[in-house]
Amino acid sequence: MKASFSRGEVGAVELTELYLAKIAADQDKKNQRAINAFLYVDAKQALLQAANSDARRARHESASDIDGWPIAIKDNIDVAGMPTTAGIAVNRNRLAEKDSDCVARLRAAGAVLLGKVSLNEGALGADNRNPHFGDCNNPLRHGFTAGGSSGGSAAAVAAGFCFAALGTDTMGSVRIPAAYCGVVGFKPSYASISRTGLVTACARLDHVGILSPDVETATKMFAQMRQCSELPSHFSPQFIRLGVLANLASHGVNPDVIARFEEAVARLGESDFLVSSITVDQLDFGQARRAGLLATEADMALVHAGYFAELSPHLQAMLNFAKAKSALDLAMAYQRMERASQQLMDCFSACDFLLTPTTPQRAFALGQTAPANQADLTSLANMAGCPALSLPLLPLDTASDTLPFAIQIIAPPGRDDRLLALASLLTPIVRSSVR
Amino acid sequence: MKASFSRGEVGAVELTELYLAKIAADQDKKNQRAINAFLYVDAKQALLQAANSDARRARHESASDIDGWPIAIKDNIDVAGMPTTAGIAVNRNRLAEKDSDCVARLRAAGAVLLGKVSLNEGALGADNRNPHFGDCNNPLRHGFTAGGSSGGSAAAVAAGFCFAALGTDTMGSVRIPAAYCGVVGFKPSYASISRTGLVTACARLDHVGILSPDVETATKMFAQMRQCSELPSHFSPQFIRLGVLANLASHGVNPDVIARFEEAVARLGESDFLVSSITVDQLDFGQARRAGLLATEADMALVHAGYFAELSPHLQAMLNFAKAKSALDLAMAYQRMERASQQLMDCFSACDFLLTPTTPQRAFALGQTAPANQADLTSLANMAGCPALSLPLLPLDTASDTLPFAIQIIAPPGRDDRLLALASLLTPIVRSSVR
Repeated sequence: MKASFSRGEVGAVELTELYLAKIAADQDKKNQRAINAFLYVDAKQALLQAANSDARRARHESASDIDGWPIAIKDNIDVAGMPTTAGIAVNRNRLAEKDSDCVARLRAAGAVLLGKVSLNEGALGADNRNPHFGDCNNPLRHGFTAGGSSGGSAAAVAAGFCFAALGTDTMGSVRIPAAYCGVVGFKPSYASISRTGLVTACARLDHVGILSPDVETATKMFAQMRQCSELPSHFSPQFIRLGVLANLASHGVNPDVIARFEEAVARLGESDFLVSSITVDQLDFGQARRAGLLATEADMALVHAGYFAELSPHLQAMLNFAKAKSALDLAMAYQRMERASQQLMDCFSACDFLLTPTTPQRAFALGQTAPANQADLTSLANMAGCPALSLPLLPLDTASDTLPFAIQIIAPPGRDDRLLALASLLTPIVRSSVR
Repeated sequence: MKASFSRGEVGAVELTELYLAKIAADQDKKNQRAINAFLYVDAKQALLQAANSDARRARHESASDIDGWPIAIKDNIDVAGMPTTAGIAVNRNRLAEKDSDCVARLRAAGAVLLGKVSLNEGALGADNRNPHFGDCNNPLRHGFTAGGSSGGSAAAVAAGFCFAALGTDTMGSVRIPAAYCGVVGFKPSYASISRTGLVTACARLDHVGILSPDVETATKMFAQMRQCSELPSHFSPQFIRLGVLANLASHGVNPDVIARFEEAVARLGESDFLVSSITVDQLDFGQARRAGLLATEADMALVHAGYFAELSPHLQAMLNFAKAKSALDLAMAYQRMERASQQLMDCFSACDFLLTPTTPQRAFALGQTAPANQADLTSLANMAGCPALSLPLLPLDTASDTLPFAIQIIAPPGRDDRLLALASLLTPIVRSSVR
């Protein structure tokens, strides 16, 4: 569809109508296998934006590379005139007065804003089971989690409801659902996309990210949304050092994920890249993630104080945990996060990019208790402000298995362009590793 | 002296002996105008390292560009076999068992480690008046502050006791004393020099930095200490956008500092750079700095808990302030820091580098109460993890006035090389602006 649109065979209005129809069909009450990605759709405004885009294109005055692209926005990011629930029912009728900074940039670039997509309550959690708005299903396997907290964003992309979606990523909330749904999830460097106009989950760790079917789409979206302009740079695989996280089992990664990851890495070893093993055995991923969780709970207790009783009992209990703590308890958590982020940064003296699986396991059934360690491999990049991208890997046996694996690529802060360029180079290599 | 050493006319031993003699003369009890930069000197080890360096040079096997350079280390950074007091007397006999990561890199590069230099108690404060070890004087004007908390580092460089010094910078502690003493102060991107082996002031904000007589020296030091290797990049003044912070008076900057800063900026306007004005009137620099202070106090209360009664009453009172706070109070401070850092990052959509004065005022008399706003212009770069460099500007009238001004250059995270390259380009321009 994107190729047809790029070639001009399909207009933005036609495209938007098609996507709106797909979304409406999914949301139909009679649909037994609904994905339930969207919380709010503004068809009228979307079609108006699409018509304007078609008019610009007719005048050969496209606003950007993404003019006319239908985009979904996670529902903790303000879009003027739409509610921002942050996944909490009591916010249902509170309309955003103005766009968040990132959405304003997309709007100025001519994007078509379809509506708001599902997330965990308050964007805390990684299973996208929302007590106010229901579960979001994985488009690749009904009854399985789409991941979270940007589950609606990943599901909308995987289901073909949009060209790309915005998500937010506090400890992995863009990359985890991207991994579970088989799409690309890109979390850029800290604050390189402005967080102004977001509902804070953890101010220290929040990042805006992009979910898309491929790296090229994420790159074009990021070019419109970034604060700092791109710098020219050389890039040659011969001199790129890829570090591969070692001892995955000791970090709690499941055997099937290890097997698929190592197979992809073996293919990289046959390429021009310099591949080496990186050991961070002194780093306690779980302790760092728990520290991030306390910081998140404390920030959320402040952010949602005005309607605390309206939160789910589960979330209230989590925020009460932070409310009972002292400043020094929280300071200890911050110190642990900084130590972990230093340990991640220390890896970059031996490599230019660090490769890990994105998650310790694949998507799980919605009835199953969410594994506690889902964000263990993703949260460090938030703490260190590193850009990180999740690249999907097909299952080993695509005939019988529908749930993808994913590889995460992490770079030092500020090297977003190089990370995206590397991810493009890696895509055909790791894809080809399916036998 | 450095030129003679580079040309091989002076050996490392001869150089080290000379510097040790200068330091000893300053520390002599009969010296009425002592600078008091050093807390600890290890002449024997320094001379041994220097002899090894000379031997390597004789074999044409220099370890690095900085082999044989005499370096001073701030006394909150571990050097194996030397005490690390962090400016607190009770730590006087506690020897570091191993080098901090950054010192290990200097040692491996062949640097000569002269000893440890003075700082504010616990590295908190910007006047380097230490209740345990006495005041550090400004080498440019006796009886005036050298700035802090890395005052000993700046003074040692300004007095010609070393080629360069390491400092730490939590809210401006490298750049402020650099500005007051007329030397270069460089704080790189967050965690790009490892903080492993530092006494934490605030884990979130601490950076290792470099103080040196010129940008070239800082660049060579950084090349040895950085975690991530340098990337090739293009650099042409024609396309560089310099943003100049507007409305300085409303941000509490003194009139003499504004006048000198604007004169330097006017010269840049005559160059090939694209210069524009950047307004951040919605940003409350003081509020952000106070938030950073609470975070620092909380971390220090944890770090120095074991000997709390040995701290000065002033520091005890500050740390008690944090100990009485709740987790949500501290979370609010962190949120303020993140908002401020986002506002700094937002500037980089309109410019590639942001220029400000380094400090709202110049060095003040040691008897005077330290201004509360000394770190207002520097602390944002710590919060956002941005590299920032303070470049000295001579006084307007060098015949009657000895105290320098300084310009601060801030870049987005990860652009350390570009910042150093720009600072080199700016040096002759801003220097020439003295009439």
